Amino acid sequence: MLTLYELAGADPDVRFSPHCWKTRLALAHKGLAAERQPWRFVEKGAIAFAGTDKVPVLVDGGRTVADSWAIALYLEAAYADRPSLFGAAAAQPVTHFVNAWADTALMPALSRLIITDVYAAIDAGDRDYFRRSREQRFGMALEQVTADRDRAVVGFRAVLAPLRRVLADRAFVGGPAPLYADHCAFGPLMWARCVSDFALLAADDPVAAWAERMLDAYDGLARAAPRAVSAAA
Amino acid sequence: MLTLYELAGADPDVRFSPHCWKTRLALAHKGLAAERQPWRFVEKGAIAFAGTDKVPVLVDGGRTVADSWAIALYLEAAYADRPSLFGAAAAQPVTHFVNAWADTALMPALSRLIITDVYAAIDAGDRDYFRRSREQRFGMALEQVTADRDRAVVGFRAVLAPLRRVLADRAFVGGPAPLYADHCAFGPLMWARCVSDFALLAADDPVAAWAERMLDAYDGLARAAPRAVSAAA
Repeated sequence: MLTLYELAGADPDVRFSPHCWKTRLALAHKGLAAERQPWRFVEKGAIAFAGTDKVPVLVDGGRTVADSWAIALYLEAAYADRPSLFGAAAAQPVTHFVNAWADTALMPALSRLIITDVYAAIDAGDRDYFRRSREQRFGMALEQVTADRDRAVVGFRAVLAPLRRVLADRAFVGGPAPLYADHCAFGPLMWARCVSDFALLAADDPVAAWAERMLDAYDGLARAAPRAVSAAA
Repeated sequence: MLTLYELAGADPDVRFSPHCWKTRLALAHKGLAAERQPWRFVEKGAIAFAGTDKVPVLVDGGRTVADSWAIALYLEAAYADRPSLFGAAAAQPVTHFVNAWADTALMPALSRLIITDVYAAIDAGDRDYFRRSREQRFGMALEQVTADRDRAVVGFRAVLAPLRRVLADRAFVGGPAPLYADHCAFGPLMWARCVSDFALLAADDPVAAWAERMLDAYDGLARAAPRAVSAAA
C-alpha cells in the first residue's frame, strides 16, 4: 500500500508540484498505484513524520521516503523487477545530472514566467506563506517578476537548448521510450501546464513535440491531470 | 593505427580545443594511443577527406569519423571490450544530454570569459578567420566580450550549478570513476586551462576539486598538457 503526499491547489484536484510530478511519472513507469494525499504548504505538521517540510513524501508500508530523487532511487531498488527508471544502474548518476539541471536551470527560468499563475492556483491558506517566501527569494513582488514575461520567455527557451538538442535525435531524453530523465525535465512543464495558460514553447519547437509525447505517455496520465482556472485558455 | 586531427595553437604543442579534449580523454579511457596530427583553422583542405571543416577527426585504419560525439559512439562500438565510455548502453542517451549541456550552456558562458585568451594562443595564420567568425557570433569586438569578465564570471559559475550539485554526492559525474559525461564537462575547462590564466572557479567550489581529479585521471594526461604563454600565471 503506497501513499503519496502531493501539493494541492485551491482546487484540491489540481496537483501541480513539479517534484510531485516527477514521482507520479516514476510510479506510473513502475506500474505502481498510490493513494494520493492532498497537502498544502501550511500543513508542515502533516508530513513532519517524514522528517521534512516539503513534498513529495512517499509512504510504502512501513517505509517513508522524502524528496523526489530519493524516492526515485527507492522505487528503483524496492521494485527492481519492474521497468527500470534509469535504463541501467550505470545511468543513474548521469540521470542525476539531468535532475540537477532541471532544478537549477529549468525551474528558475520557468518560475520567473509563471510564479503569479502558481500563486493564483494555490489554496487561500497558502497564499501568505507563498508570497512571503517567494518574494524573499526573488527580491521583488511576484507581479514584478512576471511583468515582462513576454520578453523573458526568450531566455527560458534558450535554457532548453540541451533538451532541444538531444530531442533532435530521438523521441525521449532517455531513448526510444521515456525514462526518469524525461520525468525530471517534464515535471516542471507539468507545473506550468496545471496552473498557467502562458505560451512557453513555440509550436515548432522539438521540445513542444516531446511534451506532447510525454502528455500521452503512461496512458495519458499527464494529459488527464486537472488544471486550475488560471490555466484555462 | 589511430590518427587524431587536433586543433593546434601558435605553439604546435598547445592543443586546446574543448571538443578534441573530449576525444583525447575518451581515447585514454579506452586505453588507445593515437598519432596526434596538428591542424589549424585555415587548413580546411587537410580534413576535407572527412567531410567536415572541424576537428576532432579520427582516422582508425580505413574508417574516418568526425565530431566528438560521433567519435565517442564509434569508439564505444568498435572497442566494446575496453572500459565503457558510458557505463552501460542505456546511459548513452542521458550522457548525450550532458554533452548538449556542455556545448549549449557551459561553452557559451565560458567563451565569453576567455575568448581573447584563445585568440592570443592561436596561430598567426588563424587570427583573421578566428576574429571575423567569432566577432560575427558575438556581435562585437573580442576585446569587448571579455572586458567585464571579472563581473561576468558570476554568471559562469551559476551555469555550473547542475555540475556542482551532482559533485556534492560523488567524485565524478559518471560515478566513482570518470566516464564520458565527465569528459564532456571537463573538455571546456581544459580549453580554458590551456590558454588562460583567468580564475574561473572559487577555490572552495566542488567543481574545482573535481577539476583537480580530472587533471590527475588517466595518469595525469590533462595535467601534463602544454599551456600557451597566455595561460602562464
